Amino acid sequence: MPFAATILTLYPDMFPGPLGVSLAGKALSRGDWSLETVQIRNFGRGKHRLVDDTPAGGGAGMVMRPDVVAEAIDHAAPEGDKRPRLMMSPRGRPLDQDFVRGLADGPGAVILCGRFEGVDERVIEARGLTEISIGDYVLSGGEIAALVLLDAVVRLLPGVMGNALSGTHESFEDGLLEHPHYTRPAEWEGRMIPPVLTSGDHGAVERWRRTEAERLTAERRPDLLRR
Amino acid sequence: MPFAATILTLYPDMFPGPLGVSLAGKALSRGDWSLETVQIRNFGRGKHRLVDDTPAGGGAGMVMRPDVVAEAIDHAAPEGDKRPRLMMSPRGRPLDQDFVRGLADGPGAVILCGRFEGVDERVIEARGLTEISIGDYVLSGGEIAALVLLDAVVRLLPGVMGNALSGTHESFEDGLLEHPHYTRPAEWEGRMIPPVLTSGDHGAVERWRRTEAERLTAERRPDLLRR
Repeated sequence: MPFAATILTLYPDMFPGPLGVSLAGKALSRGDWSLETVQIRNFGRGKHRLVDDTPAGGGAGMVMRPDVVAEAIDHAAPEGDKRPRLMMSPRGRPLDQDFVRGLADGPGAVILCGRFEGVDERVIEARGLTEISIGDYVLSGGEIAALVLLDAVVRLLPGVMGNALSGTHESFEDGLLEHPHYTRPAEWEGRMIPPVLTSGDHGAVERWRRTEAERLTAERRPDLLRR
Repeated sequence: MPFAATILTLYPDMFPGPLGVSLAGKALSRGDWSLETVQIRNFGRGKHRLVDDTPAGGGAGMVMRPDVVAEAIDHAAPEGDKRPRLMMSPRGRPLDQDFVRGLADGPGAVILCGRFEGVDERVIEARGLTEISIGDYVLSGGEIAALVLLDAVVRLLPGVMGNALSGTHESFEDGLLEHPHYTRPAEWEGRMIPPVLTSGDHGAVERWRRTEAERLTAERRPDLLRR
């Protein structure tokens, strides 16, 4: 079974969005992965299909109701569905490449996209949602965060990138940022490609790349080296 | 002048994408911000408009040429353009809410979306691009990362969220994750809203929220407390 993503959202029109283009889009057309959206509003209350209500304890903003969200989850992922249940949230576990690889090796994901002030805590607990954060900033909703997560996963699925990934070094693969890249022209605006890269000495090239990756990481992200 | 974003990309069809929907989309229609895309391929070399070439030093993947990218940047942001020039890249400065606020207070941004293995280092230096990373994972290109950055910025622009933000506490605002939220029904699947939230004691509600925010942050993100 290919990787199956189900997105619970109030904005199904946002999907596949950018994932319908380029390699991810071609892979979606080929069936290398699948994407289903579930409109949370279909489970809303009353004739206006309300999905949110005012926060207990007062304050601005609206909170998504636990009963509405639970019904949408139970519809999208009935008992026996083995896929992890995720919720995109700035309070969540920071997304990293290890988590992405783990997801790509699994059957898929059910992803709740929160909106408004947040989602009632009880449904997060009762339905065992794992909160995932794509970074330390606030978005207007979980939808673009879900697109990020899926893009990171889909490019690792078998067949999606072809051989494009084989043999390349990537940022975070070994805990380092990627070394600098150069290509033609050899001289541009008076700037030259570092001579070692055109020396034909493959060992020296590898050493240079490793040293540069370590230098960049130490300079920009010493926190990565400490992990 | 409203916030003006210019995106340099090989996939202009990905924009505005999810930013054309919901509050960001309405704000775009109203002119509260503007979005322009520049197709990098228009500056490509030869009759096939090539934008990339093989990496100096060998290896898989392709690297975006410095001359092509520089022409696209010089076209999009001629001398005198005061907007910061950013490049979405996993090697970059990690995006955070402070950087987002700074951008939202400025005139806009010129954002280069890399593809393939990377972008020739010389053009990053020569055109003074600030590399920005949305998180420690690898995407298929910079486009979805640019959507994340813009979504985070646009929701802070005057008029975009109306009063929706006023008086609310958000994750990262004071270095803490957000407290849990609850709404109706008061009892759901045997789970109650914490009594303090329905006590009518506003001081007690505020203290509970602060304590919960501190507890969650200590539990999930002790790194935020150390900063």
